[in-house]
Amino acid sequence: MTEVLIDCGEALAQMRAKAPLVQNVTNYVAMNVMANVMLAIGASPAMVHAEEEAAEFAGFTQALTINIGTLSAPWVRAMKAAAAVAAARGTPWVLDPVAAGATGFRRETAAALVAERPTVIRGNASEILALSGAAAAGKGVDAADGVEAAEAGALALSRATGAVVAVTGRVDFVTDGTRSCRIANGHPLMPQVTALGCALTGVVGAFLVDQPAFEATVAALAFYGLAGEVAARGARGPGSFAVAFVDALAALTPAEVSAGAKVTWA
Amino acid sequence: MTEVLIDCGEALAQMRAKAPLVQNVTNYVAMNVMANVMLAIGASPAMVHAEEEAAEFAGFTQALTINIGTLSAPWVRAMKAAAAVAAARGTPWVLDPVAAGATGFRRETAAALVAERPTVIRGNASEILALSGAAAAGKGVDAADGVEAAEAGALALSRATGAVVAVTGRVDFVTDGTRSCRIANGHPLMPQVTALGCALTGVVGAFLVDQPAFEATVAALAFYGLAGEVAARGARGPGSFAVAFVDALAALTPAEVSAGAKVTWA
Amino acid sequence: MTEVLIDCGEALAQMRAKAPLVQNVTNYVAMNVMANVMLAIGASPAMVHAEEEAAEFAGFTQALTINIGTLSAPWVRAMKAAAAVAAARGTPWVLDPVAAGATGFRRETAAALVAERPTVIRGNASEILALSGAAAAGKGVDAADGVEAAEAGALALSRATGAVVAVTGRVDFVTDGTRSCRIANGHPLMPQVTALGCALTGVVGAFLVDQPAFEATVAALAFYGLAGEVAARGARGPGSFAVAFVDALAALTPAEVSAGAKVTWA
Repeated sequence: MTEVLIDCGEALAQMRAKAPLVQNVTNYVAMNVMANVMLAIGASPAMVHAEEEAAEFAGFTQALTINIGTLSAPWVRAMKAAAAVAAARGTPWVLDPVAAGATGFRRETAAALVAERPTVIRGNASEILALSGAAAAGKGVDAADGVEAAEAGALALSRATGAVVAVTGRVDFVTDGTRSCRIANGHPLMPQVTALGCALTGVVGAFLVDQPAFEATVAALAFYGLAGEVAARGARGPGSFAVAFVDALAALTPAEVSAGAKVTWA
Repeated sequence: MTEVLIDCGEALAQMRAKAPLVQNVTNYVAMNVMANVMLAIGASPAMVHAEEEAAEFAGFTQALTINIGTLSAPWVRAMKAAAAVAAARGTPWVLDPVAAGATGFRRETAAALVAERPTVIRGNASEILALSGAAAAGKGVDAADGVEAAEAGALALSRATGAVVAVTGRVDFVTDGTRSCRIANGHPLMPQVTALGCALTGVVGAFLVDQPAFEATVAALAFYGLAGEVAARGARGPGSFAVAFVDALAALTPAEVSAGAKVTWA
Repeated sequence: MTEVLIDCGEALAQMRAKAPLVQNVTNYVAMNVMANVMLAIGASPAMVHAEEEAAEFAGFTQALTINIGTLSAPWVRAMKAAAAVAAARGTPWVLDPVAAGATGFRRETAAALVAERPTVIRGNASEILALSGAAAAGKGVDAADGVEAAEAGALALSRATGAVVAVTGRVDFVTDGTRSCRIANGHPLMPQVTALGCALTGVVGAFLVDQPAFEATVAALAFYGLAGEVAARGARGPGSFAVAFVDALAALTPAEVSAGAKVTWA
C-alpha cells in the first residue's frame, strides 16, 4: 500500500539546505505556533501582514502564504496586494481559505484571492468544497465533511485555477488537476491542537521554494503527518503532544521521512 | 465542607456530548491558549471578531464570549453588534471585563456591553468591583482585591443586570442574585500562566449551551480548577504546568469531576 | 574570563521584590510568550497597545516596552503617544526595533521612536546596524550579521541617543556609550523558539524599574541566557526547550544567577 513515488525526505533536505524566507499573512491564533513550526523545520518565517508593508515584503520573500482565519478590511487589502506581487514575480504562494464558507466576508475574500493565482490551495474538506462552489457542511473552522467528499471539488478547483489543491484530513488528498495522491500520515491528536493546519500552510510554502509544486506539497504533508505520528508516541494529551510535535519536526531526518512517508497515487 | 449540590461531572458530560460551536471575541494574548483549552475540553471554538463578520457569525453560533483584553474601536463595534445578536436570539453569552477599571476606554466599553444583557459575567475581584461601581485596587490585568471583597459587588451586579456573576480567584464565588456558591478548586500556578482566566470564559460559554446558567457556570469553574490541581502534581514550573493543564482538561472524566469538585453554598 | 562586575542575582532579587507593572506594546506573535515569560520572572505584564488607551496606561505603568514587529498605522500612533508619555514622566522604556531595516515603514517608525529617547534599545545585530545607519544584511527578523559587526554601530547609536544599546546574539554586547560589556550566557536553541528575543525586551523593562539602566540591562541578559542554559539540559528539541525555559525563569534563584552570569568588560 505504501508506494514511494516522491522522495519526501529529499524534498525536506532541499528545503532545509535553503532555509527559505517565507512571508506569512496568517491569523492571530496561528501566528506563534506557525512561527515555531517553521523555525523547527529549518525555515525563516516572517509574519508580515500590515497594509503598509505586506506588498513591499512580498517583493523579496522567497515564498508567501495567506490565511484568511481572522480577517479585517485592511488585512484583505494587504492580502490582495501581497498576492498580486507574488503572482507577478512568480514567487510561489499558498492560500489557506479558513472557514471559507462561513460568512459572506470570507466567501468574497477567498474568491478574490483565488483570482490572484495561488500556487497551492490548502484547506480541509469543507473549505475546499466551499471554494469549489459545492455545498459544504462546515460550521466553523473544523471540517464537517470527509476528505473523500471533497476530491471531486478539489479536482475541479485545481483545473479551474491551475493551483495544486491539497485537502487535509485523516487521509490527505493532493491534486494538480492531472495527477492525484493520497497521504496517510498523521494522528488524531493533530486536529486537537489549534492552528496545526494553519502552520502546515507555512510548511508547504517553505517546501515550494525551487521545488515543483505538486511534489513539494505531497512531501510537506507526509513529513508533517509523520511528525504527528512520532509526537503521539509519548504524549499524554493535546498539551504534551503539541510540545513533542515541534520537537519531532526539528528531529526528523530526511531518511526517516523517506522511510515513513505513506504516499499512494489516487 | 464539600457539599455536592450540582453534578459538575454530568454538566461536563453534557457539554462534551454536544461539542458546541462557541464564537469567541477575545484578546490577542489569549486567542491561542483559549482555542487549545476549548479543543481540549471537547468544544469547537471559532475566534471570530472582525466587524465585517462578528454579528453574522453570532447569528448561528451556539454560544458567544466577549473579552475586552485588547480593545480597539472597530473591535468594540464588533463586540456590541455580536452581543446584540446573541441577546436578541437568546444565545447564551459571557462577558469577560478584563482590566475593566484601568482606563476610560475600558470602563465605557464594559458598561456598553453589560447593557447587552450577558448571560454570565466572569472576572477577577478587581474587575467585578469596577463593573459594580465600587472602588477597585486593580492596576492591570491581575487582581489586587480578594474575592471576598467583591462578593457584595457581585450580588449587586447580578441583581442589576440579571446575569450570573462569577468572581474567580483563590476561591471562586458565583451568584445569580439569589443563590451563591463558592468553588475551592484550583492551584496557585494557574495565575502564573497568562490567559488561563480568559480561556476559562470560553469554557463557561461551552457549558452554557442548553444548560442552566448558574449550574453550568459553577460546574465549569470546578472542572477547570480541578484540572489545575491535577496538572500541578508533576509540574516543575509554570511552563510544564501549562502543558499538563491542557492534558488534564482532555483527560478528566465526568466521574473524576463529580468526585473532585469542591462546591459549597455561600 | 568570567569577571563579576555587576551583581546580576541582586538585580533579579530587586526586580522580583517590586513585581513591577510593565506595559508592553508588542507584536502579535510575541504577546503570549512575552506575558508568560514576564509572569514567570515575577513581573506583572500588561499588553496594552490600543491607540485609545496606550498613552493613558503609560501614565501609570512602571516601565514601558515597544516592539515594532507587527505594525499598522494606528499602532504606530499609539507607540509614539505612549513613548512620549513615558519620556515626559521619566518612566523607563525599551525599544525593540524588529526587522528595522526590512521595509520603509519600519525604518520610519523606528527612527520616530528613537527620537522619543528610549532608555534602552535592544535588537539583534542587523537591527542595531539598521538603526545606526550602517548597511545591514538582515533579511527578516533573524540576524544575518554577527554581534561583533554591530559593536561600533551600537556605540555610535548609544552616543547619538543617550540610550543604553544592547545587541543580542551568541554573545551579547551592551553599551551606554562609555562602558561596554559582553554577556556570554545563552544557548543555540533560544533563536529556534519564536519571540524569545521579543520577550527579553519585556524582561529588560522589568529590571529597569528603580535600577540603573546599564547594570539592569546587563543583569537581565545574563539571567535570561542562564535560564536558556538550564532549560537546554533536558530538552529534546525547540518544543520541550520552550517549556523548560519558562520553568527555569521561575526557578532560578538570585544566588544561581550571580554564580552563573558570564559578564566581562568589552
